[in-house]
Amino acid sequence: METEHKKFDLIIIGSGPGGYASAILSAQKGLSVALIEKRDLGGTCLNRGCIPTKTLLHEASLWSLFNQSGMIRNREEVHSYFKKTMEKKDLAIRQVVSGLQNLLAREQITLFRGEASFHNPTLVIVKRDGEVIDRLEGTQILIASGAVPKEIETSKRDGQWIIGSDDLLRLEEIPSSLAIIGGGRRGVEFATFFTHFGVPVTLIERENRILPKMDREISVRYKGILMKNRVKVFTETEVLSTEVLEKNRSILLTLNQKGKKETVKVEKVLVVAERKGDVEGLNLTHAEVALKGDFISVDPFMKTSMPNIYAVGDVVGRGFYAHKAFYEGRVAIDNIVGKESQVNYRVIPICLYGHPEASSVGMTEEEALNQYGEVQVGKFPFMACGRAIAEGNQEGMVKIISEKKYGEVLGLHILGPMATELVHLGVMAMKHEIGVEDLKELIFAHPTFSEAFFEAGLDTYGEALHMMKG
Amino acid sequence: METEHKKFDLIIIGSGPGGYASAILSAQKGLSVALIEKRDLGGTCLNRGCIPTKTLLHEASLWSLFNQSGMIRNREEVHSYFKKTMEKKDLAIRQVVSGLQNLLAREQITLFRGEASFHNPTLVIVKRDGEVIDRLEGTQILIASGAVPKEIETSKRDGQWIIGSDDLLRLEEIPSSLAIIGGGRRGVEFATFFTHFGVPVTLIERENRILPKMDREISVRYKGILMKNRVKVFTETEVLSTEVLEKNRSILLTLNQKGKKETVKVEKVLVVAERKGDVEGLNLTHAEVALKGDFISVDPFMKTSMPNIYAVGDVVGRGFYAHKAFYEGRVAIDNIVGKESQVNYRVIPICLYGHPEASSVGMTEEEALNQYGEVQVGKFPFMACGRAIAEGNQEGMVKIISEKKYGEVLGLHILGPMATELVHLGVMAMKHEIGVEDLKELIFAHPTFSEAFFEAGLDTYGEALHMMKG
Repeated sequence: METEHKKFDLIIIGSGPGGYASAILSAQKGLSVALIEKRDLGGTCLNRGCIPTKTLLHEASLWSLFNQSGMIRNREEVHSYFKKTMEKKDLAIRQVVSGLQNLLAREQITLFRGEASFHNPTLVIVKRDGEVIDRLEGTQILIASGAVPKEIETSKRDGQWIIGSDDLLRLEEIPSSLAIIGGGRRGVEFATFFTHFGVPVTLIERENRILPKMDREISVRYKGILMKNRVKVFTETEVLSTEVLEKNRSILLTLNQKGKKETVKVEKVLVVAERKGDVEGLNLTHAEVALKGDFISVDPFMKTSMPNIYAVGDVVGRGFYAHKAFYEGRVAIDNIVGKESQVNYRVIPICLYGHPEASSVGMTEEEALNQYGEVQVGKFPFMACGRAIAEGNQEGMVKIISEKKYGEVLGLHILGPMATELVHLGVMAMKHEIGVEDLKELIFAHPTFSEAFFEAGLDTYGEALHMMKG
Repeated sequence: METEHKKFDLIIIGSGPGGYASAILSAQKGLSVALIEKRDLGGTCLNRGCIPTKTLLHEASLWSLFNQSGMIRNREEVHSYFKKTMEKKDLAIRQVVSGLQNLLAREQITLFRGEASFHNPTLVIVKRDGEVIDRLEGTQILIASGAVPKEIETSKRDGQWIIGSDDLLRLEEIPSSLAIIGGGRRGVEFATFFTHFGVPVTLIERENRILPKMDREISVRYKGILMKNRVKVFTETEVLSTEVLEKNRSILLTLNQKGKKETVKVEKVLVVAERKGDVEGLNLTHAEVALKGDFISVDPFMKTSMPNIYAVGDVVGRGFYAHKAFYEGRVAIDNIVGKESQVNYRVIPICLYGHPEASSVGMTEEEALNQYGEVQVGKFPFMACGRAIAEGNQEGMVKIISEKKYGEVLGLHILGPMATELVHLGVMAMKHEIGVEDLKELIFAHPTFSEAFFEAGLDTYGEALHMMKG
C-alpha cells in the first residue's frame, strides 16, 4: 500500500471532458498534473453520453433509410442490425477512450484509478475498494466529477423495468414498447432512436412543451414530427406511480396530465430526468468547498469557495454539455496559470441529434422580445434549399433573430439537416459581431445546406433569393 | 406572329443561376424584367448540373452504405436501385424548376421561351424554330447564357459510346465499365458515383494531378482514395484516339501517358472536359460585345465592352460555380440600379461532392507560400474528431493556412465529412477578418465535425485538444 504524499501542481478529479481537457491544457502549459478517475476513463461523454449516443442515432437513421428504401424484405433483420449497432457503439467508445489514453500519456499526465476524497484543501486521498492507495498533494485542485441522475420517487430505477441511459446502452434486445420520462434533448434523442427501430414510444414531459429550453417554434414543430412518427407525447404530465406486472412482462405507469389520470403500459421505462452534481464521497466539507443546491458553487473564474480549488463541467450545473465543460476548463486553467479569465455563456451552441437535428445559440425569440421589445426575424425553409431538395431532406428551417438598430445577431435556431453543424455560423457571427446585414457580403457555395443560413439572413430584409412564399 | 417591340428595364438572356438570380434581384428592386430561355428553365445547374448530380451522389452513397451493411443479398438489386436513383433525380429537378417558376411568377418576371439574338445593343430578337416570335427592347441587357462543352478532336461525343454529362443523366442502365476524360471536380464526382455502383472506372487527366485547382495535399490524398476504390487514375495523359468496337460493344482508347502508349477498353467514355461560353446565335457583333478567348469579356463591374450590356456566370468564365454566378448577378444588378459595386473573387468556396467531400476557399498552401514566403499551417485529422469516430466517417482532415504576423486566414482546405458545409466557417473568417488566433474564443459544440475546424485553428499554435500525434 502506497501512502507517501505525491506532489503535483494540479490535481484533477474526474476524467470526463472537463477533467481531461483541463489536464491536457495545463500539461501543455507546463504544469505537473494528476488525474483521478473512479469509473470509466473519459467520463459520461465518452462512455455513456455524447459519443455512444451519436453512434446509436447515426446507425438507427441508416436503418430507417434502408427500411424506407424498400430493400429490406425480412423485418426480422432489425434484430441483428440492432445488435450490430450496439457493437459499433462499443467500438466507437473503445476508439475514443484509447485516443484519450494516448493523449494523456503524451502529455505525461499521471492517471490514478480510484475514488478521490479530500483530506484538506490541498490533500486528496485516492481509495480503491475502500482502501487508501494514494495521497496526492496539489498546489491547486480542479473538480470535474460530473453529474449523476436524480432519483425520482415515483419511478426509481431498477435496471430492468425502469432503466437509466446507462442501462439502455447495455440493452441486448429491442424493447417491444418504451416510455421515456423527460422530454428534453436527451429524451427526444432516445425517442428518435427507438422510433427508427419501430418501437412504440411514449414521451412524458412535466413542462408544457417538449424541448422546453429551445425556441418555442422548434419545440412545437418537433412535437409534430415525433407524433407523425407515432410517438405519444404527454406534456404537463407527472408520473404518479409505476407498477410492475411481472406476468405480462410489462410495467404500468399512472400519469397525471393536467389533472386527468392516464395509464400507459409498456415493456420498459427509461428515465432521462434531472441530474445533480456527483460529489458523493468527495468530502467537500474537508476542503471547505460550498455547494449551491445540487451543484458546486463557482464564481465567473470557475473558482469554488476555497481559493485554490476550481470546479468545471456538469458538477457546477448550468447545462450539461461537453463543450461547456471544455470551455470552463480553458477558463479555469487560464486562471490557474495566472492569466485572468471569466466565463461568458452568451454564445454556447446547444444541439439535438434527433432526426431531424435541431440546434440553438443565443436568445430564443421570446427571450429576445422580452429583452429588446422588438426584434427582426429572418427565416428560410429547407424545402426551398437546393441541396435539401436534391437529397430529399427538406424538413425544417433556419431562423435568425437580430436586433433592429445594428442588425446584431441575438439568436440562431435551426431545425433540419446539419443543424448541429450549421449552428457554428451563428456562433461565429455572434462572437465576432458580424451583423445580419454583413452576411450579405458572404458567398455561400451552391448547393449546400449552409445556404439556408445565408438566405435566412437575407430574408431579414426581404431579400432572400429562393424564398417560397404563400 | 408577334413582332411589336416589348419594352423592359432589363432583358436577361439565360435562366440559369446567373440569369434567374439577377432577374429576381432586379425585380425586387422594382425593374421590369424579361427573361429569355432557349432550353430548360433553370439552366445547367437545375437541370443538368448541381442539383441532379447531388441527388445522384447522395443516392449512390446510400447504396454503398446498404451494400457495406451486408444486408443486400441480391446483387441484382443494384439495377433497380439505379433506376430509382435516376427517378429521384428527375423528381428533384421537377421540384426545383417548379419552385423557380413560382419565384419568377411572384416577382412578375416575363419569361420568353426561345433563342435570343441581338439586333442592336438595345434590341433583342427571340426566335423559336427559326421564326421571330418577339422583339424586346431593353434599357439594359444582361447576358447569362452559360457555357457548353468544348469538343475534343480525339473524343467527339456521339451520345452512345462517347457521352457528355447530359447523356449520362439519361442513362437507363449501369455501364459495365467507364472511362472519364477530365480529372477535375466533375470528373471525380462522376467517378465516385459509378464506383459506388461497382463500375470499374478509368479517370484520365491531362495535368500532373487530379483536382489540379485544389490544394496539392487534398489532390494527392484523393487520388489514393480513388485508387483504393479501384479507380484507375492516369495523370499527364492525353487521349490519342478512340475506336468503337461495335462487335464487342466497347470502345478502345489509346492514351499517351508521359510518352508511353496505353490502351483502355471500356463500354462508355464520359467526356467532362473544358467548357466555353455559350454565345452561339447571340449575334454579339451586332451588340458590339467583345469576347476574350472563349468567354465574354467583362470588367470588375460585370460590364461588357458595350456600356448598357452586362454578363455574368459561366459565359464570362473564371470558374463554373452557380454561387459565383449568383454573386456576379448581385454585383451586376447593383451597378444596373446605380449602386457601384465590384467583384472580388478572394473568398469563393469550391466544393467537391464526392465521398469523401472536399472543399477549398482562398489560397492553396503553395499559393500562400509563393505570396508570403512563410505561412502557418494548422491541421486536424477527422480520425481524432469525436463525431467522425461515432459515425464511422473518419477519412480526411481540415487544414487552415494563415499569415504569420496577424494570423489572417489565407486559405481553408477540407477533405472529409461535411467538407462542403464546413468550408463556410472559413468563408466567414476570411471575409470578416477573424484571425486564426480569434478562433480560440469560439465555443464549438461537441461532438460535431465542425470541431475539426476549431482544432485545426488551435493546432496552428500547437494547442489542439484532441490532436493525435506520432
